[in-house]
Amino acid sequence: MAEQVTIGRIGEYVDQVVSIKGWLYNRRDKGRLQFLLVRDGTGTIQAVAFKRDLEPAAWEAAAQVTQESSLVVTGIVRADDRAPGGYELGITDLEIVQMAGEYPIALKSHGVDFLMENRHLWLRAPSQWAVLRVRATVIRAVRNWLDDHDFMLVDAPILTPAACEGTTTLFETEYFGEKAYLSQSGQLYNEAAMEAFGKVYCFGPAFRAEKSKTRRHLIEFWMVEPEMAYVDLEGCMEVEEQLVAHIAQEVLAHCRPELEILERDVSKLEAITAPFPRISYDDALKILAEAGEPLDWGEDFGAPHETVLGNHFDRPVFVHRYPAQCKAFYMAEDPVDPKLSLSVDLLAPEGYGEIIGGGQRAHDLALLERRIAEHKLPQEAFAWYLDLRRYGSVPHSGFGLGIERTVAWMCGVHHIRETIPFPRTMGRIYP
Amino acid sequence: MAEQVTIGRIGEYVDQVVSIKGWLYNRRDKGRLQFLLVRDGTGTIQAVAFKRDLEPAAWEAAAQVTQESSLVVTGIVRADDRAPGGYELGITDLEIVQMAGEYPIALKSHGVDFLMENRHLWLRAPSQWAVLRVRATVIRAVRNWLDDHDFMLVDAPILTPAACEGTTTLFETEYFGEKAYLSQSGQLYNEAAMEAFGKVYCFGPAFRAEKSKTRRHLIEFWMVEPEMAYVDLEGCMEVEEQLVAHIAQEVLAHCRPELEILERDVSKLEAITAPFPRISYDDALKILAEAGEPLDWGEDFGAPHETVLGNHFDRPVFVHRYPAQCKAFYMAEDPVDPKLSLSVDLLAPEGYGEIIGGGQRAHDLALLERRIAEHKLPQEAFAWYLDLRRYGSVPHSGFGLGIERTVAWMCGVHHIRETIPFPRTMGRIYP
Repeated sequence: MAEQVTIGRIGEYVDQVVSIKGWLYNRRDKGRLQFLLVRDGTGTIQAVAFKRDLEPAAWEAAAQVTQESSLVVTGIVRADDRAPGGYELGITDLEIVQMAGEYPIALKSHGVDFLMENRHLWLRAPSQWAVLRVRATVIRAVRNWLDDHDFMLVDAPILTPAACEGTTTLFETEYFGEKAYLSQSGQLYNEAAMEAFGKVYCFGPAFRAEKSKTRRHLIEFWMVEPEMAYVDLEGCMEVEEQLVAHIAQEVLAHCRPELEILERDVSKLEAITAPFPRISYDDALKILAEAGEPLDWGEDFGAPHETVLGNHFDRPVFVHRYPAQCKAFYMAEDPVDPKLSLSVDLLAPEGYGEIIGGGQRAHDLALLERRIAEHKLPQEAFAWYLDLRRYGSVPHSGFGLGIERTVAWMCGVHHIRETIPFPRTMGRIYP
Repeated sequence: MAEQVTIGRIGEYVDQVVSIKGWLYNRRDKGRLQFLLVRDGTGTIQAVAFKRDLEPAAWEAAAQVTQESSLVVTGIVRADDRAPGGYELGITDLEIVQMAGEYPIALKSHGVDFLMENRHLWLRAPSQWAVLRVRATVIRAVRNWLDDHDFMLVDAPILTPAACEGTTTLFETEYFGEKAYLSQSGQLYNEAAMEAFGKVYCFGPAFRAEKSKTRRHLIEFWMVEPEMAYVDLEGCMEVEEQLVAHIAQEVLAHCRPELEILERDVSKLEAITAPFPRISYDDALKILAEAGEPLDWGEDFGAPHETVLGNHFDRPVFVHRYPAQCKAFYMAEDPVDPKLSLSVDLLAPEGYGEIIGGGQRAHDLALLERRIAEHKLPQEAFAWYLDLRRYGSVPHSGFGLGIERTVAWMCGVHHIRETIPFPRTMGRIYP
């Protein structure tokens, strides 16, 4: 039996006889010639069967095999610039592992509801394959950059006794007779870890029971949240722009075939280089007014405002120093103007909106106690959090980067439901 | 101001004046001499203040600073073999950032309930710092090994409509009028991803609402689950042993100071080299009988049996081909004896028990349909899962490795509650 190889590494086997174990993606029947498009999860290759070159059983298999059947195809690897991917396989043998029945996802287009109902199969489509390969690359880029910059992974809990920012959008469950909630953010826990480990991050799923059907929201999503001791707002922005630029570079370096499938304009990704422009919330209001999307001071941005601001620059833009009333209780206040918070959001261009939210945290005990009272949060649930200001409090900053929004932006896909393997939206928890 | 450096990299700055931003871990007062043990999250260093070398304000700060206060200490780095870690800092300046009140965790020993109640502070203790540094190293080793071996990360959903293995130990929540459950395993979703991407893994939190108080169980834990197309039971074991051996090597390569703090016998980790012994369930019963822990054929192992089997070998041992009745409905059956499943567990030595469960999956549609009926599982919830056998079914295998048990074993700690930053046990969901 020939050596088993993957299509992703097929270029290393030119003129050799190899076996590929995969699935039939598509075919063209030319009588004595069968063009089989075979995928194996790492890529797709055109395999060509000539009737005269094959044993009758193998030819019969090549002529009969149906879309999405599993198969083992053996043949000689040929470099061919005309072939998609640059290589072709001249079939010498073919064995069907399982003959698929009529495949529900035809190669014509379907409605998105049908595709989502068949998400377990739709994953195999080239566009979905490409998006999720980019997703894996984005996640690896994030982890490697943080690990290489001395951030330590400290997983935050998912089951939590109290809410970080109110309870209306929380999933609740019973925990041995108590109430527990699914985490919306690991940040508070990160702050404890930061005082033990210096620079940390958590990276896990987060949950928002939001009755929202926009293209930027998921019920279940993944978020990476770094937190840094002895780092101020400016230092926080520097880390954010380095990280985001690194993500774009890694996607460009490793995902060219995927970006091609997605017809992504790569010049948009090449433009993502640090430093990113920095504007204050007050500056942003001026830009919005000039663009005909005026906003009252103190109001938070909605999707249309984020889109205007994002499109105003050729790369992501930092908007810093939002009014304190727009942001969570734990944000530090601006010493120059206590009405402002030392917060910063990063808005992506091309209408992708907020990719990162974060900033400098309040590290003064008295301020935090006052804030918890003002926000009517349950004091006893935050007892441990206040301890962090009693014992070794330090200036510190951190942020949360949403993986799905970042992947959507990298890929240029419109709706983030395609950027997670099994999306959870208001109307969907199946499959 | 001197360059800010981390203790983890202090060896690069011998004879230079540097600043360290951190916390006071401990002190010894010798009158005109103060020995301050300073930690910054990356390590601990002894900093020495001489009254005659310092400005009065800095000396006063050095003499007054309390345990776990945050501080910036500046001084000259000296190589000194007698100093813990091999370096010492000769203090030239010291500034207190926040003076801590009396720290609740004294340097004497406390009961575990008290420590867990103060987990947000206990993280700073050397033993906990060391365990969680090993945890981060284990996770990085797992991800890098899988990524480098062409496995693709495909995150499985946490909110799921149906149970993988029964509903008695599931956390339930309301999902926009429907019932949803917290995932106990991403495996079924992995199988869909495997048919799209070839070799995949998911890596996330999993939840079991088990009324169990053993030292090997957590309510919320992390698990990595690889799944591989066209891989059989033997191939699965080969991947498992390579991965586990790699984890041990990486811990040995990167965590020597941590293992020293934990007083871990590193010879136990050095012994973890592939191949691992493989015994059948039937062989295991014989060993158990000889050891005076007999078990009836068809019964699953309990903790005492796993301990006996694990201690019988100097490295982890594979136990394969359990009776089908011990294992989940989706395991493949042994063609030689259909009473047996093509399952395999990996048992660690030293009483750490089952680290991995997995094996070859049933890929035949009719067999799976029969199993789902026998297990009285809701057929309609598995409709999509059965599709995977209708369209391109292939022989495939996979496994789940429990992160906390693996970390406990690497560290030699007795109870897995110390191996996760914020443990969730039957009696604890705070902090």
